[in-house]
Amino acid sequence: MKTVLAGGVVVTCDDEHTVFNPGDVVLDDDIVCYVGPSYQGEYDTRLYVGGKLVMPGLINAHTHSGMSIFRSLADDVDLMVFLRDRVWPREVKLTADDVYAGSLLSGIEMLRAGITTYVDMYFLEEELARAAVDVGLRALITPAILGVPVWAPILGSLERQIERSFDFCRRWEGRHGRIHTGLGPHSPYTVPLEFLAELAHQAQEEHLPVNIHLLETKQERDSYDFSGRGIVVTLEDIGFFDGPVISAHSVWLSEGDYEIYARNRVGVAHCPQSNAKLGCGLAPVVEMLANGIAVGLGTDSACTNNNLDLWEEMRLAPLLAKLCALDPTPLPATQALWLATRLGGQAVHLPDIGVLREGFRADLIVLNLADTVAVPVFSPETYLAHLVYAFSARQVDAVWVNGSQVVRGGEVLTVDVEAARCAAQAAALSLTERMAG
Amino acid sequence: MKTVLAGGVVVTCDDEHTVFNPGDVVLDDDIVCYVGPSYQGEYDTRLYVGGKLVMPGLINAHTHSGMSIFRSLADDVDLMVFLRDRVWPREVKLTADDVYAGSLLSGIEMLRAGITTYVDMYFLEEELARAAVDVGLRALITPAILGVPVWAPILGSLERQIERSFDFCRRWEGRHGRIHTGLGPHSPYTVPLEFLAELAHQAQEEHLPVNIHLLETKQERDSYDFSGRGIVVTLEDIGFFDGPVISAHSVWLSEGDYEIYARNRVGVAHCPQSNAKLGCGLAPVVEMLANGIAVGLGTDSACTNNNLDLWEEMRLAPLLAKLCALDPTPLPATQALWLATRLGGQAVHLPDIGVLREGFRADLIVLNLADTVAVPVFSPETYLAHLVYAFSARQVDAVWVNGSQVVRGGEVLTVDVEAARCAAQAAALSLTERMAG
Repeated sequence: MKTVLAGGVVVTCDDEHTVFNPGDVVLDDDIVCYVGPSYQGEYDTRLYVGGKLVMPGLINAHTHSGMSIFRSLADDVDLMVFLRDRVWPREVKLTADDVYAGSLLSGIEMLRAGITTYVDMYFLEEELARAAVDVGLRALITPAILGVPVWAPILGSLERQIERSFDFCRRWEGRHGRIHTGLGPHSPYTVPLEFLAELAHQAQEEHLPVNIHLLETKQERDSYDFSGRGIVVTLEDIGFFDGPVISAHSVWLSEGDYEIYARNRVGVAHCPQSNAKLGCGLAPVVEMLANGIAVGLGTDSACTNNNLDLWEEMRLAPLLAKLCALDPTPLPATQALWLATRLGGQAVHLPDIGVLREGFRADLIVLNLADTVAVPVFSPETYLAHLVYAFSARQVDAVWVNGSQVVRGGEVLTVDVEAARCAAQAAALSLTERMAG
Repeated sequence: MKTVLAGGVVVTCDDEHTVFNPGDVVLDDDIVCYVGPSYQGEYDTRLYVGGKLVMPGLINAHTHSGMSIFRSLADDVDLMVFLRDRVWPREVKLTADDVYAGSLLSGIEMLRAGITTYVDMYFLEEELARAAVDVGLRALITPAILGVPVWAPILGSLERQIERSFDFCRRWEGRHGRIHTGLGPHSPYTVPLEFLAELAHQAQEEHLPVNIHLLETKQERDSYDFSGRGIVVTLEDIGFFDGPVISAHSVWLSEGDYEIYARNRVGVAHCPQSNAKLGCGLAPVVEMLANGIAVGLGTDSACTNNNLDLWEEMRLAPLLAKLCALDPTPLPATQALWLATRLGGQAVHLPDIGVLREGFRADLIVLNLADTVAVPVFSPETYLAHLVYAFSARQVDAVWVNGSQVVRGGEVLTVDVEAARCAAQAAALSLTERMAG
């Protein structure tokens, strides 16, 4: 079944930042089969998208979808207050229904913001996968693995968690053409090195990626002492990077770490808003890119952000790079746009997303240009700057994931949005009551 | 004529951050005459706003409205390249129609983002005022005064510019109950001290505020040499601060400057996005607030931002304060909300805006809460955090300025938006052609 999106401004996000204006994009079921000027072949359906912009869907390289029911629960406080006093006491009481409700709320919000793929790390992973299937998103789901005593009654031993994670991956990998799976060891300070080594080796055998938080805070960096060596060197030594790894945050890398990341093709999920809001710092994005590291963008959870709008991250990444360098030239718009698309796909080890190109997945978004912020246009290149510095999630008009349309006229087509909002609110309040009770 | 907005979540932004949930707000023509729980008095019209949030309109303390036709014209380049190569050569060829088109485009964008008051500094000031009147916004218009040779053929001598500015103020002050006027000397590096002193004294006699750019860049700070004294000390010496002054940017203040600002009630327009994007730095907002200085938020122009969305500034101000302090506690949500409202009104010397309170101007906005980002709500205080960290301009449903409704269902009621977009695009292209010709 071939669908033509005809006559729009086509921003490919390819290596040369090719823009076709006007251009056509043709979907053959779940794959893009043509991108270019006027398409002359056969087709089943043709949608005219003149006056609109077509581009790859955005990639959210790091989130915890179940946490949106904690939105605005714990702002302006230290990370340890946030975790120990506010979040963890609630999380250990979460039910499967609560996690599904939070994850579905997150999915709706992400779709409306033009995100087509997200990387998720949380527990009660069956619910994460169910929500992703139901809302219609592409998701890389990595069940959280946590060796923290408060969690033991809920999650079981580390051995049991690792075993359960692999079982989840074997059952869910590839479902619907858009559920991807991997391992989610929380961090080196919550999962001991021997477990990290073991699960990484097994993941490499089964060709699964590993998703981990690394060097989010200065305190974390200062807490490691491996005979005077840093955590990144140590992880390389134990073979942790021998397979695909997504490293979230990576704020406090040392000079030599860039080369280790680069030669092991470690992908980075840069979360500028969460890192700023928690006072963690700014990841060295410019240096990572200069070293050839694939960097994507993550919203982190709705509890530390407090939304899942990747447009904000795409704008914040260059703003913060320029602010901290006291120089307006680093991380120009063209590069920021790649972080959210092409490089994001590479960072999360899904190499056939993030670019509008023949043979890539049919994950794309259509933006409304009938808005004051889309004026003026001096040349096709103006759109690249508008996308990063002027546009917002409000521009998102339509979304396709894996060849299926899931948003039309800004409205989600797959689930009952009003019911999902009510369920999430009910879950949040019920949890608060159970806490008090 | 009394209008009741009944049954909404009323966020007053007063000194105690009072929230009425539900609450009523009553407008008596252009003034708020009641804010509180269920209103029992007489009225002419009653609008039920249950499930929505009512708050003061946002205050954009610094912009150049005519520049939206240069949106995304000059990103990721040094400020001097930006001005000398891209902007100034175009600006000296601007016609009155161009400035009106740009200013109207800006006005539409600001209204839809829930801004009800803006402070404008640009030239061809009659057009700025006409656009503000037509779109329905409250505006403090300060004609730009610039002693730069390239501008002389357009603007005339400094004496002539100052004379023309006072003439403009006398003719426009108070029109429609929402046009406010003042002086707009661009900066101490474009207007010599003797002229700054003279125009300030005359402005003080006529009770007009003065709007100026101060200490935007480190280079600017380093360029001043007044017998080893800083520019702020020097301006105090010449009596520049003896009347109401709005200082835009103030990124590179020195320790002693806080006290000078405080005792002279200098208002500050903090422009975090523009300052970050141009690599200028971060203004010391936390220190200014600790010293009792009224700080508001400004978008700056659509050419250095690249939109006029004050929600982004309200979120960015705390994010950047936390990032640069490596601490999540500075500038909490409640304070950030004040920057955009109550403190913004004080900063721009319009003390009867920015709070929903009896006797204040009827400038208010109504936000849609039927959105995933408005879930969950734990208590009335949750809304304050949502406003700063989760919401966006997309929530803006209705806007009243000076007692008149100007936005309904997110749509601007006062002008033909489509025609304004086309006029702005035509002006931008025609200017580019005149440049080439």
